[in-house]
Parts: sequence; structure tokens; C-alpha cells
Amino acid sequence: MNRNTQTSVEADPSLPVIRMTRDFAATPERLLRAHTDPALFVRWVGPDATSSRIEHWDARTGGSWRYVSVHDGVEYGFHGCFHEVRPDRIVQTFTFEGDPDGVALETLWFEDLGDGRTRLRAQSLVDSFESRDAWLRSGMETGVDEGYAKLDRMLADGAV
Amino acid sequence: MNRNTQTSVEADPSLPVIRMTRDFAATPERLLRAHTDPALFVRWVGPDATSSRIEHWDARTGGSWRYVSVHDGVEYGFHGCFHEVRPDRIVQTFTFEGDPDGVALETLWFEDLGDGRTRLRAQSLVDSFESRDAWLRSGMETGVDEGYAKLDRMLADGAV
Repeated sequence: MNRNTQTSVEADPSLPVIRMTRDFAATPERLLRAHTDPALFVRWVGPDATSSRIEHWDARTGGSWRYVSVHDGVEYGFHGCFHEVRPDRIVQTFTFEGDPDGVALETLWFEDLGDGRTRLRAQSLVDSFESRDAWLRSGMETGVDEGYAKLDRMLADGAV
Repeated sequence: MNRNTQTSVEADPSLPVIRMTRDFAATPERLLRAHTDPALFVRWVGPDATSSRIEHWDARTGGSWRYVSVHDGVEYGFHGCFHEVRPDRIVQTFTFEGDPDGVALETLWFEDLGDGRTRLRAQSLVDSFESRDAWLRSGMETGVDEGYAKLDRMLADGAV
């Protein structure tokens, strides 16, 4: 039953876009909750070696968010606004505060696979190929893989 | 003194981006106010043949906005969130509600030209060339030109 629990990460050949696809053993409702409830989100986001805390969180259309991740005692801040939160989609902006002028437009789609599983498709759009490729070189895949593995365990043990 | 009061609008050849440049006879502070004060913004935004009203407006980092433009009795809604509002830059999302799944990431830069004038540079980023080209074909330039001409008059008569 562990089909497609690897995260597919790909760079678009003609757009400054990163796309990710990952299946989860959860309904769209539960997977959305894991992305919008700050007490849940903070438990799974990021690589294993970091811990995160929510500084601000208002997960509704027109709201905004900020969290800080701590790795080896160093704090890394992230913030953005929620353009739209609806049952099948989240659209939000994303800035890593180490690059304060950089902004990505992120879209997450929650696709019901009809068997209690949900396919998460995520797209991150930036305004240059250089920025996109820097993200791909940053080791983001480790954080994504480890974060989603934590989320898998939370879904399995009923934490969500 | 009316140099560069035409709006330059161009499509990037390799990114799904529209860029606009326009000079105004105002300091960056006044030009920013014209974009963030809802009572001012609503007086100049859009083509001459429309009138607009603010439905929601919170022009600060993490805030959001919505306005409705009326043309020949038909209402057109627009909304988004403010990723960042700072003296030299506004970053926001933008959806025309006639295309509710479409989203643009817009950045406005206010560049002080040092002689009481300010150069506005605006960039609109979407996730496909088809969407970008549809915007260019939509007649947006008329709305932009007429709106900025209204803003010129408001700056000249001291309304801002």
C-alpha cells in the first residue's frame, strides 16, 4: 500500500516553476487540516533536524502566516500571505527571510484519489530561473521528504 | 516636463511576465499613498468608463484587499493579499474573479528619481504564457493608461 510515497520533484523546462507530487493515506479534508491547523503543521514541516514554531497563523483566504525553524541553534524565518484557502486548493506567497526580497507564489492542490488517499500537487513559481534553480540546489528535497514522512506518521497514528 | 508619462508595457520573452514602467510627478511617499490609501486608490484605478468601490482593504504586510469595478452596470470583482508593503515596494497577489482560478504575483517598485519624480516599475507574474498573453490581449493597457492619467491629475491638483 506504500505506492507513490516518494515525492516527485521536477523543474519545468520552460517556466521558473518547481512541481512536486506526493500521495498520502488520508482524505483531502485531513490533508488540508494538516496544512492549515498550526498545531499540526508545525509538527511535520521541515527536515528532521529542525524544530519549528508558529509566530503568526491565519489560514483563511486573505490571511497570513509566519513561522521560524531552528537548526543547530540558528533561526530561519519564513512568511507569506494566504491568497486563497479552499477545500481543494491553497494559494499562498512564500518568502525565506534569509533572502528577504525573494518571493514565490505557491499553489497546493488536494486531489481525492477516491480510495481514502489524496494526491498533493504543489507548484512554486518565482520570477527567474536562477532563483528556481537555487531552490533546487538548496537541499529542499531533504526537508520535503523528511517533512512528509513525519506527516505520514501523524496520519497513521491518528494525530490529524 | 511631461517626459515619460506614457506607460511602457512589455512581455518578457522567456518568462510569463508583464512589465510596466511609468514616471509620476510625485515623491515615492505620495505615490505609495496613492496605492495604499483606499479612498485615493479607488478614484484612479481602471479605465475612465468604470467606477470602482472598495469592498475590503488592509494595505499592510499580511493584509488583503478586494474591490469591484462597475462598467455599463456590470460588476467585475478583483481580490488578493498583500505579501509585503514597504516604502519602496508592494508585493501582492491578484485575481480577476471572472477567472477565479487565475492568480498573478504582482510587484510594484517605487524608484526615487531624485527630482521630485518617481519611477513606478510593475511586474505581473503568472504560471503560463497563455495566461500572460490573454492579459495582454484583454485591453488592459487602456485601463492602465487611463487610470494613470487620472492619478496624474490627482497628483497635480493636490488630491494625494
